Amino acid sequence: MTVNIGVIGTGSIGSDHIRRIGEKCRGGRVVAVSDLDQERAAAIAARVDAKAFPSGAELIANAEVDAVLVASLAPTHAEYVLGCLAAGKPVFSEKPLATTAADCERVVAAEQAAGRRLVQVGFMRRFDSDYRQLKAALDGGEIGDPLMIHCVHRNPFAVESYHSEMATTDTAIHEIDAIRWLLDEELTSVQVLTPRKTSRRHAHLQDPQIMLYASDSGVRADVEVFVNCQYGYDIQCEAVGETGTARLPDPARLSVRSQARETRAVPQTWQERFTTAFDVEIQEWIDAVAEDRTSGPSAWDGYAAAVIADATVKALHSGGIESIPMPARPGFYD
Amino acid sequence: MTVNIGVIGTGSIGSDHIRRIGEKCRGGRVVAVSDLDQERAAAIAARVDAKAFPSGAELIANAEVDAVLVASLAPTHAEYVLGCLAAGKPVFSEKPLATTAADCERVVAAEQAAGRRLVQVGFMRRFDSDYRQLKAALDGGEIGDPLMIHCVHRNPFAVESYHSEMATTDTAIHEIDAIRWLLDEELTSVQVLTPRKTSRRHAHLQDPQIMLYASDSGVRADVEVFVNCQYGYDIQCEAVGETGTARLPDPARLSVRSQARETRAVPQTWQERFTTAFDVEIQEWIDAVAEDRTSGPSAWDGYAAAVIADATVKALHSGGIESIPMPARPGFYD
Amino acid sequence: MTVNIGVIGTGSIGSDHIRRIGEKCRGGRVVAVSDLDQERAAAIAARVDAKAFPSGAELIANAEVDAVLVASLAPTHAEYVLGCLAAGKPVFSEKPLATTAADCERVVAAEQAAGRRLVQVGFMRRFDSDYRQLKAALDGGEIGDPLMIHCVHRNPFAVESYHSEMATTDTAIHEIDAIRWLLDEELTSVQVLTPRKTSRRHAHLQDPQIMLYASDSGVRADVEVFVNCQYGYDIQCEAVGETGTARLPDPARLSVRSQARETRAVPQTWQERFTTAFDVEIQEWIDAVAEDRTSGPSAWDGYAAAVIADATVKALHSGGIESIPMPARPGFYD
Amino acid sequence: MTVNIGVIGTGSIGSDHIRRIGEKCRGGRVVAVSDLDQERAAAIAARVDAKAFPSGAELIANAEVDAVLVASLAPTHAEYVLGCLAAGKPVFSEKPLATTAADCERVVAAEQAAGRRLVQVGFMRRFDSDYRQLKAALDGGEIGDPLMIHCVHRNPFAVESYHSEMATTDTAIHEIDAIRWLLDEELTSVQVLTPRKTSRRHAHLQDPQIMLYASDSGVRADVEVFVNCQYGYDIQCEAVGETGTARLPDPARLSVRSQARETRAVPQTWQERFTTAFDVEIQEWIDAVAEDRTSGPSAWDGYAAAVIADATVKALHSGGIESIPMPARPGFYD
Ligand SMILES: [Mg+2]
Ligand SMILES: [Mg+2]
Ligand SMILES: [Mg+2]
Ligand SMILES: [Mg+2]
Repeated sequence: MTVNIGVIGTGSIGSDHIRRIGEKCRGGRVVAVSDLDQERAAAIAARVDAKAFPSGAELIANAEVDAVLVASLAPTHAEYVLGCLAAGKPVFSEKPLATTAADCERVVAAEQAAGRRLVQVGFMRRFDSDYRQLKAALDGGEIGDPLMIHCVHRNPFAVESYHSEMATTDTAIHEIDAIRWLLDEELTSVQVLTPRKTSRRHAHLQDPQIMLYASDSGVRADVEVFVNCQYGYDIQCEAVGETGTARLPDPARLSVRSQARETRAVPQTWQERFTTAFDVEIQEWIDAVAEDRTSGPSAWDGYAAAVIADATVKALHSGGIESIPMPARPGFYD
Repeated sequence: MTVNIGVIGTGSIGSDHIRRIGEKCRGGRVVAVSDLDQERAAAIAARVDAKAFPSGAELIANAEVDAVLVASLAPTHAEYVLGCLAAGKPVFSEKPLATTAADCERVVAAEQAAGRRLVQVGFMRRFDSDYRQLKAALDGGEIGDPLMIHCVHRNPFAVESYHSEMATTDTAIHEIDAIRWLLDEELTSVQVLTPRKTSRRHAHLQDPQIMLYASDSGVRADVEVFVNCQYGYDIQCEAVGETGTARLPDPARLSVRSQARETRAVPQTWQERFTTAFDVEIQEWIDAVAEDRTSGPSAWDGYAAAVIADATVKALHSGGIESIPMPARPGFYD
Repeated sequence: MTVNIGVIGTGSIGSDHIRRIGEKCRGGRVVAVSDLDQERAAAIAARVDAKAFPSGAELIANAEVDAVLVASLAPTHAEYVLGCLAAGKPVFSEKPLATTAADCERVVAAEQAAGRRLVQVGFMRRFDSDYRQLKAALDGGEIGDPLMIHCVHRNPFAVESYHSEMATTDTAIHEIDAIRWLLDEELTSVQVLTPRKTSRRHAHLQDPQIMLYASDSGVRADVEVFVNCQYGYDIQCEAVGETGTARLPDPARLSVRSQARETRAVPQTWQERFTTAFDVEIQEWIDAVAEDRTSGPSAWDGYAAAVIADATVKALHSGGIESIPMPARPGFYD
Repeated sequence: MTVNIGVIGTGSIGSDHIRRIGEKCRGGRVVAVSDLDQERAAAIAARVDAKAFPSGAELIANAEVDAVLVASLAPTHAEYVLGCLAAGKPVFSEKPLATTAADCERVVAAEQAAGRRLVQVGFMRRFDSDYRQLKAALDGGEIGDPLMIHCVHRNPFAVESYHSEMATTDTAIHEIDAIRWLLDEELTSVQVLTPRKTSRRHAHLQDPQIMLYASDSGVRADVEVFVNCQYGYDIQCEAVGETGTARLPDPARLSVRSQARETRAVPQTWQERFTTAFDVEIQEWIDAVAEDRTSGPSAWDGYAAAVIADATVKALHSGGIESIPMPARPGFYD
């Protein structure tokens, strides 16, 4: 009953998932790997007792592979996901599902044509225990109907290759999915504020940025993205409803009193903050595959995030309010 | 050396200040009062051993009156403040300094003509211990140069007479002044977001609202105003700088663990939250008057707040980004 | 209707109260002062427009003096309080009421003989807003019947003249009164634990110490006294009841995130922590005197604290469990 | 390289560990189980594809079993651990190592005779992330040399079969081990305070209790055990050192503001609080076995806890201060 998993892409996130499947999760094993760098694929395959394939396509085609995890470079995601759909195999795609909304649409169309849900997209916030408490509070009516969501996404430092559009596509993308999921509705417009740039950044980068979204029902969500905040990795989210508010807790850390101060450490990396969420994410995917069920963020969620991200990048450049051209969600994805 | 104070307006805030001067502050005493309702003025005068005057003008003119506190209806503030300036007497005006920017300008012009600073405007946040810690952290470079300020101003309920413009003129006005003071620079543009309206409000009211400001140097400040939040009076402010953040603490309240929950009370009124700030505000005004010094928010601050409030109301109605037509600050106010 | 107050003792705490009465409280004024150091008394008298008396006895006898505040050296408290009782004048005595239980008994006897309550003792914790919330939670049944109280009393540094007995008589004495007040019952036995001494103390001092008390009904209270804790002035109190717990909050302080840490300042002095409680204490005393009422900790509370302190010091030296020889409280003090 | 594990005892904690090894941990698999209830053993064996053995002795003897996890009834622990030592097999024993200090001594003697460390005892606090931060702060000198430790161990409800001695042997036993580990020294004396009993308990039970320990160097540790506190499962630990304090954080939980209160949920079970610690505990044991290393709490730690527990129970009954007759630790356990 073990799910035999093929992993395409053995870079940082790919190896992380391979280790996760082998060491932290139950019910699955990595039987196949592939990578552009075939030597690396071979080395990892040897280590985990899997088979290395010369290409993702061959890995997907292999009969021993029950399900595929795509962790290759972002521009190749769509091709591999489409390959899996063609082969009728369940596939977990790291975010983004594709680098263009058009490619996401192709995936969505192919999955509907296949007649059943096979794709899960890697938005791991939905698997974090704190976010799940927040979602439960919203769904349980603890704060009444939502009116506003305030989000903060801060990283201590960004590398030079991180450019202004990535504030949306790599960073706020997590909040984009989280907001859609928390509200259970679509976003309809976006605007991007560009505060004075921090001096502690590479010169080409607009950092920080504030994204402003409106939802179908008129909920307003704001997302502060600040990827050179120096002091830590800091994720905040407060939902404001008609009768109350709910706010993610800060991670629990030892409280030390000394030298006239009370201090607690602030996490420095997303790994510190979200490792457990990634474990749960992959575990629930394996469980769903084993039981032939659907679970987690769908291809539609990946597509919607891409549409919203496109509009957000457009808004960054235009400085104006951009509407988000979201088609109606097919019943297939209800 | 006691400062003899005349109080114009003996309504809710006026009587509060009279009690404050008599019971909480040192160095001043109320010797004169006036009110449209002359019976009320007489009753209060009798109680505190002061003299009741038939009009504010006569109170200002009285030789025994060293300094004047204006707590009458907002539309009358400018007239009384101008009267004090004409008489060369120090005056504390409750906010707003005037109900139009034009009237504020008249005050500013008259004060400059008088040749010395005589006016303090009642923005009491600047006297709150938590805000002062925040100001000190900013001025002391603890978080580096500021980039963003996030403010929240929530009240449990608004009365029916509270209308949409008052979200700016009565509520966000405190944040408008606080932001200018914290940043020590002017605001240049404003936009107002109008989230879905809470069902728990009077029908005419846009509640909540989110005001978005930009400053001279490009700092972005956002202010959530939500005056029917049901759960309490909740003031939040977080400044984000190039190297760190500083955030007002929540008021200290007993922590109780019972019935599977840890709970602490949330303040319900501005009195609970800011009474001490009012005490300090009036005390420092009396001290300044006694020592012939200038202190606290100036007429220029009152004028600037009026200009910003006007632009904010305009932005609420236009739905667009409005520039704030702020003249350069005269050296007189440095 | 102003209460004319005579202050005996113009040292640190005496001048503090003089300033408090003049500047922070309403309804009272200092009309007379005396001090062993007659020059100091004269200087202060001149400053606040009061009369200096050559002795406490003469001050008490003066017809203009309505009520007396005793802030002289501790060994003289009893004499002055007895003098006030003889003169039929209300008196506020700084803690301790007397330096021996026998002297406290004399005060209690004299007050009963006088036939009405005239004495308030300076245990200011009862006037602190946080403690009052705790008392209200206990009295309101929010945590059920109390079973345990955990107290912490830490100071950053102790001067060389601070000796081991003072951990009880100057420091834990506040918790002794607070525990009696919170529980509304008497303490019956005491034991003192002597942990390894901190190296950061003067050699003669046992620091820290842990006092263990049992009450009439079997509630157990522990008090950690640590007067060289280096990092700050830290007061903690948690009551544990049959259905829940209640805990004093830490003072609200700005939260700063920088350099991988979240920090908030810890108060360094009792003034930072309890200044407002002192203001309320003296204000409520003045109000009570003006209205011929009784208020606050009584002579009996001063006596009970002395009896408990004596037993605590005995326990420190014996290392064993000492019973507390508390007589039944006369109905006069109910 | 997979460690083949035999599990003796398939009750609540035994099945929990079987599931943990199969689903959460890497590097080990359950190949053998035994239980007094042979039907249950057979059912579980079938489920996890292991072999059921009629007795623990036969399981230990089986050549396929590399290492043994003992989770049977407490009185049988020593026998199985001794069997493993005789067979030269690594063994993880749930706490207690044995139900008498004499039996623990036999284990310690047998392990020394075997010439290498084979036993790990199930004190899982040492594997909890918060406790590890606390240990690191102590070891890193962040608070100076320790002087006091304050512990709280509260459960919402105790079953009727829970008796007064179990406050030590089942509850405080975790703090006993944690204190020894945090301080890295032995405890020398103990006293037990018995507060007024809560009305919300079974009649025979002394609840709450406060255990007072002294260490070799004079550190004082107190442990409040309150197993019918009603409101939740609450574990607290504060270490006080010469220059500062360090305190375990409360578990992070969503903060909700509504109905005039801010609330967060309090955990209700040890599973909520310590499940991850158990996962880490077993993972590190498997890793150590695989690498032929020693790790975690030793047989000596199990023995020391038993000696301290015996003295604590004696102190509960005597009401006095009991010395803890701890032999010097053999160099074998350094
Ligand atoms: Mg992901
Ligand atoms: Mg004001
Ligand atoms: Mg006092
Ligand atoms: Mg265990």
